[in-house]
Amino acid sequence: MDGSIDKKIEKTISNIDIYKDERVDNIGFGDMLLIQKPEEFCFGVDAVLLGDFAASNEKRNRESVGFDLGSGTGIVPLVASHKLPLSKIAGVEIQKESYERMLRNIKLNSLDDRISGICGNVKEIANKNFGTADFVTSNPPYMENLGSLQSENDAKAIARHEIHGKLEDFLKIGSKLLKDSGRFYLVHRPSRLVDIFAIGRKYRLEAKEIKMVAPKEGEAPNIVLVKFVKNGGHELKIQKQLNVHKNDGDYTPELLKIYEKLEI
Amino acid sequence: MDGSIDKKIEKTISNIDIYKDERVDNIGFGDMLLIQKPEEFCFGVDAVLLGDFAASNEKRNRESVGFDLGSGTGIVPLVASHKLPLSKIAGVEIQKESYERMLRNIKLNSLDDRISGICGNVKEIANKNFGTADFVTSNPPYMENLGSLQSENDAKAIARHEIHGKLEDFLKIGSKLLKDSGRFYLVHRPSRLVDIFAIGRKYRLEAKEIKMVAPKEGEAPNIVLVKFVKNGGHELKIQKQLNVHKNDGDYTPELLKIYEKLEI
Repeated sequence: MDGSIDKKIEKTISNIDIYKDERVDNIGFGDMLLIQKPEEFCFGVDAVLLGDFAASNEKRNRESVGFDLGSGTGIVPLVASHKLPLSKIAGVEIQKESYERMLRNIKLNSLDDRISGICGNVKEIANKNFGTADFVTSNPPYMENLGSLQSENDAKAIARHEIHGKLEDFLKIGSKLLKDSGRFYLVHRPSRLVDIFAIGRKYRLEAKEIKMVAPKEGEAPNIVLVKFVKNGGHELKIQKQLNVHKNDGDYTPELLKIYEKLEI
Repeated sequence: MDGSIDKKIEKTISNIDIYKDERVDNIGFGDMLLIQKPEEFCFGVDAVLLGDFAASNEKRNRESVGFDLGSGTGIVPLVASHKLPLSKIAGVEIQKESYERMLRNIKLNSLDDRISGICGNVKEIANKNFGTADFVTSNPPYMENLGSLQSENDAKAIARHEIHGKLEDFLKIGSKLLKDSGRFYLVHRPSRLVDIFAIGRKYRLEAKEIKMVAPKEGEAPNIVLVKFVKNGGHELKIQKQLNVHKNDGDYTPELLKIYEKLEI
């Protein structure tokens, strides 16, 4: 995998190298910049909603420690850190190329003092981190691994399919990382909700709040945001559904507010 | 409990006695009539939505056997039978007075050949019924029993609190009644959704479909309809949210369609 980066430099921004086949986008949130490699995997609305959902549930004025499991190029820690100025977040990513891009994204946005990167499998996070986190976020691969159909080295496949880590691995490690009463924020497909609740409970992560997200007003949801509390009591709160688009095709005011933009 | 019925006859309709303190409503569904005792407990939108949800998921043109657990005055079997003309449904109700009222409601609507009543605790349904049902419906008490706060003889309390049967009892017995691949339709509060999914799975009832119901467009849901399939596979479908009222306060067209009325 390591050798797959084409290190031919296209340009530099603030002393950060941008390689050939990469793209830099202004993604909102106070003119945050994000380096991505479009042919591999670009962040979706899911990751932004997760970062916002976590940050909105955490206390803005309190120092906190967070982990993001399966960070990709770092979009969730970047969004969350923008909304939580006193947090320190570690992004864990198994793919060396994505991890390396996350490090450049952190520098590009001058967030070196608040976001750090760990390259490795979430299953192998060192014990010394256990019980230290106030919150954990994760936008894990949604699709169950169908065995030989996916390549272990395909970046897109690793981001989308449960090749190196299953939902259960993410929840299990997240629970170990969290302090008592710590929060785990997950974004996933609603079709997995029974598993999500059941596996959470298995690792003492009680689902306390969910928010359904639909592509359009009046449609069924295709994304669910879940807030678990470690050792939390048994009562679930359902937030009102978030719709990405209005009936006329424009973005809804609720979505634009999350992006801190008047238009996307 | 038995002695609490005031048997002073107020009037008779089609040879059915209507007692003092009772009321007869035309509830739609082809001019169905329902005897209720307003000071005790009147049916809510929940029961109608459950009857419709079950009937919409079952095959209209197939003979089927159903049980309704905790029937009250029989609203769920009445609504479901209207939409499933080939079904035979048994309503199980622990309260003798409600059970007796259910029997009169069945006669009043000439449904004696298709709906029957069983008076007793759902936990005591006879073994001979196990494995016979195509579908089960239940609108169980929503609130957990807080011990001494509720009276065991208070009809309203029994309908609302888990005094004689907990959610777990309803799901456990429902699973026993069902054939393999039989359907269990439940209406409950969204705040119990984690328990609902977990307890269902414990008794091999896999949640396959949910429909959230909100009091008004753009609000958070306060009712959830759940379809379980006995021994079903692990994949949940989320239907689009049903809203009871429009923003202007009128009923939504979707709700009016369920009631088969142009206005309520």
